[in-house]
Amino acid sequence: MTLQAIRWQDHKLQILDQLKLPKETEYIDVKNVEDGWQAINKMQVRGAPAIAIVGCLSLAAELAETESTYREKAELQRDVASKLEYLVSARPTAVNMKKSAEELTAVSKNLSESGISLQDMVKSIISWCEKMLEEDVNTNKNIGKFGSEAIISGNEGNRVQVITHCNTGSLATAGYGTALGVIRALHDKGHLSKAFCTETRPYNQGARLTAYELVYEKIPSVLICDSMGAALMNSQKIHAVVVGADRVTRNGDTANKIGTYQLAVCAKHHNVPFYVCAPTTSIDLSLNHGKEIPIEERPHKEMTDVAGTRIAAPGISCWNPAFDVTPADLITGIVTELGVFKPSELYQKLQDNLKNC
Amino acid sequence: MTLQAIRWQDHKLQILDQLKLPKETEYIDVKNVEDGWQAINKMQVRGAPAIAIVGCLSLAAELAETESTYREKAELQRDVASKLEYLVSARPTAVNMKKSAEELTAVSKNLSESGISLQDMVKSIISWCEKMLEEDVNTNKNIGKFGSEAIISGNEGNRVQVITHCNTGSLATAGYGTALGVIRALHDKGHLSKAFCTETRPYNQGARLTAYELVYEKIPSVLICDSMGAALMNSQKIHAVVVGADRVTRNGDTANKIGTYQLAVCAKHHNVPFYVCAPTTSIDLSLNHGKEIPIEERPHKEMTDVAGTRIAAPGISCWNPAFDVTPADLITGIVTELGVFKPSELYQKLQDNLKNC
Repeated sequence: MTLQAIRWQDHKLQILDQLKLPKETEYIDVKNVEDGWQAINKMQVRGAPAIAIVGCLSLAAELAETESTYREKAELQRDVASKLEYLVSARPTAVNMKKSAEELTAVSKNLSESGISLQDMVKSIISWCEKMLEEDVNTNKNIGKFGSEAIISGNEGNRVQVITHCNTGSLATAGYGTALGVIRALHDKGHLSKAFCTETRPYNQGARLTAYELVYEKIPSVLICDSMGAALMNSQKIHAVVVGADRVTRNGDTANKIGTYQLAVCAKHHNVPFYVCAPTTSIDLSLNHGKEIPIEERPHKEMTDVAGTRIAAPGISCWNPAFDVTPADLITGIVTELGVFKPSELYQKLQDNLKNC
Repeated sequence: MTLQAIRWQDHKLQILDQLKLPKETEYIDVKNVEDGWQAINKMQVRGAPAIAIVGCLSLAAELAETESTYREKAELQRDVASKLEYLVSARPTAVNMKKSAEELTAVSKNLSESGISLQDMVKSIISWCEKMLEEDVNTNKNIGKFGSEAIISGNEGNRVQVITHCNTGSLATAGYGTALGVIRALHDKGHLSKAFCTETRPYNQGARLTAYELVYEKIPSVLICDSMGAALMNSQKIHAVVVGADRVTRNGDTANKIGTYQLAVCAKHHNVPFYVCAPTTSIDLSLNHGKEIPIEERPHKEMTDVAGTRIAAPGISCWNPAFDVTPADLITGIVTELGVFKPSELYQKLQDNLKNC
């Protein structure tokens, strides 16, 4: 079954401790907001949607336990607001937790001012948090469905070989994953011959996390160095490259983990279709093109040291951008939960969809 | 001054212990053939030409010490042959040492059968070994000269930024280096703005050795991950990519460290000139094209472990080719000690040169 990095059952929350991966597979209990804050702060959970979901579910777990201690709705509402604010402080730069905290605070305020009982207010808040988890998984499953269909239909139903980059799986989302969701769906349908994952230097998310997920689910897979994509495309038939996205702009330009652009250039050279897999929430219609996306530079130590050991020659300077931008003209399709769109039609399709909702 | 990995002076040999790089810069004495065998076998010296030169010079150092113990030329000749055979066994797969051993054995046989004295025979053998060192350095200096001139003239004399891959410097040759020789020459002439070197996964020759050489000689330089070449070419002006070669075939196809082909594809996409730097001894006219070159696959441990620590998820398969082949049509010029040739004119130019010799 699909690797679950976030387990929620009977109002109990457990998360896979990512600090111990890939060496140990250990779930830890997250019983309350304090535990949630610690897990986010120590990076036992990472990935933009995952952080927000774990934060909110830690609050849900606490409320399920402490429900009887509240005497009135206003008291509950104040407590929810202050606990959410505390959760945001665990990683202040993570936008998703902040956005979810604002939304849930507003929801809780409305509930406290409505005619429902204290018990129903608690239930509603817990349901809201549970829905976040469900919705993200459903979004990813739809991305998997649409992406796998596009790749299969483009190859007359034959089994395919794909390359992916970085980690876009259960360890970065609520579950299933985006680009890795497409690979899961191809495998589930019996259409995957092999998935190749890049190491993804300098933080090795591919070697550590994607490889872990692929081995865990017994998906036929092979690890390659980031320098090997072109040689692989030249020596074997590769049917598609599938990657995630940190942000897609209105014209389809895509910011994603450093190395994505290089893979896209190689895919173009070898006539390999290149798919970006992203929920519509990652599409930022306020930006016209990729040049408007700021590129974060990360500490040099990430490059010069591996597992606490200095690898690079002392004194060398480094360039360590965390992301690069792949221009729309190198992208075959953007795979969303609503379907697969050409970059040029992305904006119109999203507008049409909003009208239909 | 240029980093010297092999020091030969007054019949004494010292080599830079590459096992201790980049942490420590330590030269070790190689007093005799036994020391030479150990240094090659333990990989304190590596790189095809460097191994042969250190092996032969270890014999020269020993002969300079033990000259007086020989009573006749035939005895010396037998000893030289057996010691060379022993040196070949230090790394039996290294072709260069074997080739040099065969040549020097023949030279020594001719000398023993000629009319010269025992003392002169020893002198001649030592001179032959010294010449190997000199010739390799001179070849590299000419490569540096021709390569830097081509890059400078292509950029109207402006200061340039170049990217290199793997280690092609003093640590892989007798000194100065091939592609790194071109960078040294650009720097010496005041025409280098910056050299970017790739990490060169999985063995990190770029991060460990090239970065070490660049820092040592105070050449303005920046380390990048192998995934960043395209992003770099897209974000800054890069004037050329310079790489070495393990083997160049008659049509100009070039086998070199894995990742070279990917850089060549990216250079083509960004209109960046791509130069292969190789002595004519690396050009194999017996092969028509790159498909005839066998590609060695290396142990998976090189990818999964770094500095003794497992990085990759347990159970993941790997693909670890040591080299890839860059087709001639992606190569702007092949820089040899005789000049810079287009791949299409390489064969004719070498034939012309042989006629003129």
